[in-house]
Amino acid sequence: MKFITGSPEKGLGLRELCSGALDGQKVEVHGAVHALRRLGGIVFLTVRLRDGQLQCVCDPGVQPAGLCEECTLRVQGRIRAEERAPGGRELAAESVEILSRPAAPMPIPVSKRKLNLSLDTELSLRPVELRSQRERAVFRIQACLSRAFREYLTGQGFTEIHTPKIVHAGAEGGSNIFRLDYFGHKAFLAQSPQFYKQTMVGVFERVFEVGPVFRAEKHSTPRHLNEYTSLDFEMGYIRSFRELMDMEVGFLSYAMELLRRECARELELLQVVLPKADAIPEVPFEQAKRLAAEKYGRPIRDPYDLEPEEEHNIGRYFQEEYGADFVFVTHYPSKKRPFYAMDDPEDPRYTLSFDLLFRGMEVTTGGQRIHDYQTQVDKMRARGMDPAEFESYLMIHKHGMPPHGGLGIGLERLTARLCGLDNVRHACLFPRDRSRLEP
Amino acid sequence: MKFITGSPEKGLGLRELCSGALDGQKVEVHGAVHALRRLGGIVFLTVRLRDGQLQCVCDPGVQPAGLCEECTLRVQGRIRAEERAPGGRELAAESVEILSRPAAPMPIPVSKRKLNLSLDTELSLRPVELRSQRERAVFRIQACLSRAFREYLTGQGFTEIHTPKIVHAGAEGGSNIFRLDYFGHKAFLAQSPQFYKQTMVGVFERVFEVGPVFRAEKHSTPRHLNEYTSLDFEMGYIRSFRELMDMEVGFLSYAMELLRRECARELELLQVVLPKADAIPEVPFEQAKRLAAEKYGRPIRDPYDLEPEEEHNIGRYFQEEYGADFVFVTHYPSKKRPFYAMDDPEDPRYTLSFDLLFRGMEVTTGGQRIHDYQTQVDKMRARGMDPAEFESYLMIHKHGMPPHGGLGIGLERLTARLCGLDNVRHACLFPRDRSRLEP
Repeated sequence: MKFITGSPEKGLGLRELCSGALDGQKVEVHGAVHALRRLGGIVFLTVRLRDGQLQCVCDPGVQPAGLCEECTLRVQGRIRAEERAPGGRELAAESVEILSRPAAPMPIPVSKRKLNLSLDTELSLRPVELRSQRERAVFRIQACLSRAFREYLTGQGFTEIHTPKIVHAGAEGGSNIFRLDYFGHKAFLAQSPQFYKQTMVGVFERVFEVGPVFRAEKHSTPRHLNEYTSLDFEMGYIRSFRELMDMEVGFLSYAMELLRRECARELELLQVVLPKADAIPEVPFEQAKRLAAEKYGRPIRDPYDLEPEEEHNIGRYFQEEYGADFVFVTHYPSKKRPFYAMDDPEDPRYTLSFDLLFRGMEVTTGGQRIHDYQTQVDKMRARGMDPAEFESYLMIHKHGMPPHGGLGIGLERLTARLCGLDNVRHACLFPRDRSRLEP
Repeated sequence: MKFITGSPEKGLGLRELCSGALDGQKVEVHGAVHALRRLGGIVFLTVRLRDGQLQCVCDPGVQPAGLCEECTLRVQGRIRAEERAPGGRELAAESVEILSRPAAPMPIPVSKRKLNLSLDTELSLRPVELRSQRERAVFRIQACLSRAFREYLTGQGFTEIHTPKIVHAGAEGGSNIFRLDYFGHKAFLAQSPQFYKQTMVGVFERVFEVGPVFRAEKHSTPRHLNEYTSLDFEMGYIRSFRELMDMEVGFLSYAMELLRRECARELELLQVVLPKADAIPEVPFEQAKRLAAEKYGRPIRDPYDLEPEEEHNIGRYFQEEYGADFVFVTHYPSKKRPFYAMDDPEDPRYTLSFDLLFRGMEVTTGGQRIHDYQTQVDKMRARGMDPAEFESYLMIHKHGMPPHGGLGIGLERLTARLCGLDNVRHACLFPRDRSRLEP
């Protein structure tokens, strides 16, 4: 009988190859031909490795026939220092084996520094456009952000949960919900894991989930996606809703450190300046609105919510006055927050809630939730809702819940603001919008 | 201006409290009253902390009025060694503050060791039934499994991806796909991230995703869910499909170590014996079928697939003959594998694919994929498919892909087999089946 014993080869990435430890040694690497230049008889290859690009020099004797861009290769050779090569190292090839060949040349010059495609062309060609260096950097950074979220919260005693995306009722209300036929029953796609993460606070006290959420937004804007990845947490036994913001600041600081350590090349390539995330100003909604209106001379039109331009101006204000990239706007009006939001006991027109703005755009919504059964039932009735329709959700309030709250962070928005992308679609591998279901 | 500076309190979990380091010290803990016993004038509380249960002794002087089960508390007191208490420690309360009270007593005695509810009752009461010790143990173990998957693969150079769940075509074909109205267009819920993870091999070489997948299975069995969490990876530049199995064995070994370290109490509570995962036998499909049929006298009815009872018998065979909890069944017949599966060049009636059986049930399906454009187009045509309908998927083959493959692991099945649960629904927080959309 044969046994599989689980010692997979890790293979060499750019990080190991450029560390200096392998200089002068014979190594084997594999990757795709990202770019190919001929100079005299010599071929210079840029080989796309899993974590970056390696220059590879092939003398005439080692060039296989039919070498072209997007061939995939296995190359043996020696690593040597070479100042002019990206990363300071190059591979002097001693043998080159072609593993596969493309059937057609690339539709776009993916090795160019900037592609300057229209958004629509870019997204239509996404499966191969993502092979470009800039796109790879964006999504390596994104992976680092969700990793940071989980690592940090796990360290803070949170338990990961997986909650259903097919649901019998929406958590956020409103019309922006996708409907589904579920074996002849009406069902919906979850707009957030709200009810479930609150439920799990009664079980594990502190929980998080990284998963897709679905919003049937009918308008097309640079800040909305119809499906996005939400970084959610919920925690019990809070003394104040400020503890939620504390936890988010803790996460953001951890994430910036992890990015510095793991994504230095990507940050440099995209010229990202990491924001200061370890002390974030907080300002009440009314005051934020007024400060921005006064400084930039824009009249307040909607007293209950922030318009995108107001978010922009509030961000600008705190950047100019305090050098802050982030700002917590707190105490949103009750009428614009969901039925489960806890009202401020000092002024119940407002809630114990907040948004986090990052460089002028909301990236987080959070707040304390109602934990008392009667208070929750009363608030639902006052809004014309029927508590009987939420029986399984109200079960947790009925049978005891600690004071608690939580938040949801839009991963794509966070990535886009961090990387300076002007449309959130650029921060989503395969975005879904009103007119795009493919690829 | 006020600033949030991000030093959240972590609070004390059972792990810290029972470590011995805090013996004799004054501490503050918070949690819900899981059980309450009166003995003379003394109240013994079992307090449900985020990671376990702590015994708490309240003398008459510190008992607040109205103390009952599922009250949530903040307790100050001294930690002391007490042999008879679970975990060997108890808290001698010096002050007890009630933070919230339930509006009604629990519908089930959640502190009992076993609840013996019908599956339907259990799932209907899920929001509070999950507060029981056994359920908490199952889902702490589950969280540890998905954490292990990500940590191990990150260490092996994989990049995490987030791919869309609303899609324009199914990857697995067949009728078990949910349909959706997407702004007037026909759309589906993803049966797997297959096309997208393959696409991302062209970008990052090695990728993984932990996310929901949706299967509109019309039959109700103890092994199927209509929505489940899939642990997916896909990797390029493989020399053989055995490298995929190697990677899975590596993950499983890592996971067992992490469980040993992080979930010792939970494993003990559920009396889980961790399987040996570091050397897993592999056996070709035909041979596995024959061995089990011969040994247990069950005739082979479907030569192209494994029936559940055959999986059970194959598992039993390898348990009896080799003491193995796992077995890789390889080389499934081509006609039962999807159009993207790579046929075995030595005998194209079979594929370079495998399932992993764990204690007699399939928990993983994987295999090498076709990377050559013409081979893929030909196989689609031979199956009566129209390549034009898969244009954006075939883009990756057309413009070059390395040899690659991957697998998907059902997280709930893995959890259920590990914990000895007889129905996969027990390993899902809020299961979805034909008749259940709620809670």
